Amino acid sequence: MNLQLTADGRLRHLLTLDGLPRAILTQILDTAESFMDVGEREVKKVPLLRGKSIFNLFFEPSTRTRTTFEIAAKRLSADVVNLNIATSSQTKGEAILDTVDNLAAMHADMFIVRHSQSGAAHFIARNVAPHISVVNAGDGRHAHPTQGLLDMFTIRRYKGAFHNLTVAVVGDVLHSRVARSQIHALTTLGVPEVRVIGPKTLLPAGVEQMGVQVFHNMEDGLRDCDVVIMLRLQNERMKGALLPSAQEYFKFFGLTPGKLALAKPDAIVMHPGPMNRGVEIDSEVADGPQSVILPQVTYGIAVRMAVMAMLAGGNG
Amino acid sequence: MNLQLTADGRLRHLLTLDGLPRAILTQILDTAESFMDVGEREVKKVPLLRGKSIFNLFFEPSTRTRTTFEIAAKRLSADVVNLNIATSSQTKGEAILDTVDNLAAMHADMFIVRHSQSGAAHFIARNVAPHISVVNAGDGRHAHPTQGLLDMFTIRRYKGAFHNLTVAVVGDVLHSRVARSQIHALTTLGVPEVRVIGPKTLLPAGVEQMGVQVFHNMEDGLRDCDVVIMLRLQNERMKGALLPSAQEYFKFFGLTPGKLALAKPDAIVMHPGPMNRGVEIDSEVADGPQSVILPQVTYGIAVRMAVMAMLAGGNG
Amino acid sequence: MNLQLTADGRLRHLLTLDGLPRAILTQILDTAESFMDVGEREVKKVPLLRGKSIFNLFFEPSTRTRTTFEIAAKRLSADVVNLNIATSSQTKGEAILDTVDNLAAMHADMFIVRHSQSGAAHFIARNVAPHISVVNAGDGRHAHPTQGLLDMFTIRRYKGAFHNLTVAVVGDVLHSRVARSQIHALTTLGVPEVRVIGPKTLLPAGVEQMGVQVFHNMEDGLRDCDVVIMLRLQNERMKGALLPSAQEYFKFFGLTPGKLALAKPDAIVMHPGPMNRGVEIDSEVADGPQSVILPQVTYGIAVRMAVMAMLAGGNG
Repeated sequence: MNLQLTADGRLRHLLTLDGLPRAILTQILDTAESFMDVGEREVKKVPLLRGKSIFNLFFEPSTRTRTTFEIAAKRLSADVVNLNIATSSQTKGEAILDTVDNLAAMHADMFIVRHSQSGAAHFIARNVAPHISVVNAGDGRHAHPTQGLLDMFTIRRYKGAFHNLTVAVVGDVLHSRVARSQIHALTTLGVPEVRVIGPKTLLPAGVEQMGVQVFHNMEDGLRDCDVVIMLRLQNERMKGALLPSAQEYFKFFGLTPGKLALAKPDAIVMHPGPMNRGVEIDSEVADGPQSVILPQVTYGIAVRMAVMAMLAGGNG
Repeated sequence: MNLQLTADGRLRHLLTLDGLPRAILTQILDTAESFMDVGEREVKKVPLLRGKSIFNLFFEPSTRTRTTFEIAAKRLSADVVNLNIATSSQTKGEAILDTVDNLAAMHADMFIVRHSQSGAAHFIARNVAPHISVVNAGDGRHAHPTQGLLDMFTIRRYKGAFHNLTVAVVGDVLHSRVARSQIHALTTLGVPEVRVIGPKTLLPAGVEQMGVQVFHNMEDGLRDCDVVIMLRLQNERMKGALLPSAQEYFKFFGLTPGKLALAKPDAIVMHPGPMNRGVEIDSEVADGPQSVILPQVTYGIAVRMAVMAMLAGGNG
Repeated sequence: MNLQLTADGRLRHLLTLDGLPRAILTQILDTAESFMDVGEREVKKVPLLRGKSIFNLFFEPSTRTRTTFEIAAKRLSADVVNLNIATSSQTKGEAILDTVDNLAAMHADMFIVRHSQSGAAHFIARNVAPHISVVNAGDGRHAHPTQGLLDMFTIRRYKGAFHNLTVAVVGDVLHSRVARSQIHALTTLGVPEVRVIGPKTLLPAGVEQMGVQVFHNMEDGLRDCDVVIMLRLQNERMKGALLPSAQEYFKFFGLTPGKLALAKPDAIVMHPGPMNRGVEIDSEVADGPQSVILPQVTYGIAVRMAVMAMLAGGNG
């Protein structure tokens, strides 16, 4: 039934944080904690996945995300092969499944999948051989679970626990796979108050059913928050009818020092990157003392190492 | 005289299967057999080519083929560098030989060469330093020897021997470097009856001189075959005058369960991939019990490891 | 003050050869000498930078230069990640500094930076965390220090010393970052006579202030030279008003056997590659006995290994 777990409840694939038990989320965070020192060592490498074949299967290009997985895999001593499918066999008409079956026949151990269509990673996971794990590195507007996990890791590092927090997710929730993963993780981990803040045009209809409170202005939404998570605003949104202009957006929903002052004094500010400075966030905030945006990146490596190790290392 | 062999008869380059002695072909298949278990291990790696520098020199892009060589090289512990030449120094006008000489000066050990022009790998092999080996990963319509070898490996695995087989190669033989390599290997290894089946427009003039029987319809050609090798039909063939349409082609030359029933009941079906389902092959056949298309991919890694190890490992 | 050196005078970044003390240049050349045998070994690898994360940060594509750094890094056992920024996050509008900060947060140890704008590597070096080193792999028309260093290494190998040489740099000095790096290194290392030869349109105004003698014809400029360094002529120069045609350029400034005969009989000929044969250099010279163009490439690997080892290995 649950594609992501084995019969005895261990992590089998990482596709979405929706429905993943709190125990698994916590286990990933704890495992990531144990990898935090690897990045600090003289030799930034552990032999855990030596001789494993990990494929970065990117149907949608993303140097940034690909790099984080490549680094994490190399620090685990795995062999990594990058495949940018748009520009290769796919263009010859080979179906995704034939591609995946071919790589499986080469004794692949893991696929890191990025695709512009929601559900692509699930589709692959449903069809791979039993020895192969799939990690969703972002599928359409659906999910980006490793981003969600590194955000939880960041919150736990700075706030210690989840049960007493108010967390706001601000911006283009409608188009954001990151926001979906964050909201699922936050509610599963027991955050009592999760808020989404954004203009009506950028919030999905019925978002309340995800267990969040909806705000259409920053003044109300940010009040007394412990954590403020800003979302990236894709520039292409500006071209459609959804938004008047970047300036207008910044005025109402950009995080400035003034608006941030409405949150708790020790509130932290997060962003999945890459930032649009002056659109969704002011540089003074992005580079300010409450920003934990760069630590998020550091933690992202440890979290991805943890996920890979749990999936392929047999120590899940 | 023979560019591919050393004075004492060992493999020096792998450029074509045309003229390669049966003993060498058999040695490669035997060596590949010895690598078959590496892909099954917990640590899929042997230290045979540690510290060797292997360059994937792709003048024609092919993620799929590049990946098989990259995986094989990494499982031998070699250092692999991918060079996609079309988009780089070549565009600045540097001649192929200057590129090759430059890489040689960096102490390259092996070039895996893919090029749209027939003879490119030979040209490079004739001009490289004595310590460098060249593997042809496909040159124009000429040869694709590692594909031919993995096909022979597949046949030997499923049929045990070559001397009592009838093998049909079906489709666009005219434009296929794969077919040329297969036919040379099949005749060298002693297959008594090699058939080519295809429309007149897709068979090379005088193909009989390669030692094959020619058929222009599937009903006659497939009868009592032990092995049916389907070729990929490039979509671009449809644009010219060579073929009326994909539907028409499938009707006459696509491998369906009905046509396959004309071959021996235990006949195996092969395809070099990527498949055009519904053009040269029906999905029911491609995914059916007689298909060995995915095992071909698995064997391809072992065969490429064998070739690389024999060329660079000094154990040829 | 000096961005490239630590307080106690060790190499911190390699951005330009301008202002780098002779002792540091000599130390790099000596270290490179110690790496010369690695390329000759059966296992071309030393464990010096094992577990280090080196990023090839190429904002301007260059397969050729990227490959030399990738090979050097792999022979030092480092983990290398290639980032071609033009086609990725940069296009999403992320600023260079955010990219660099992100990679730094992943515990990067070194950035190899290539950029079409002069000063890009300096800009990054001024802004990176203390534990990260930056190597300029070519910035606009400004500098290409590892090329300059490998040229010095080549000269020292063939001529033994610098204090008694006459060296000519020929061609498009105006647009050449290579020439700038060469001239700085030659004067620092004590070459008594450095000449530049080229048409007025391709020499920078005031180039004499770099300590060179200016010649506008080969006959005068090459006379009694010990070293002749030819520069690549970018084809795009021909399109503008700077040059009449490639033929015309070759007639006056192309290095032919006849013109080379004006230099000393044991003069060596160098070129940074890739060559435009028949434009700036005649093939008879390029492939002739006085050419050391391919040894330059070999030495380039050793020099880049030396720079990387000094920067990241802590043995500077």
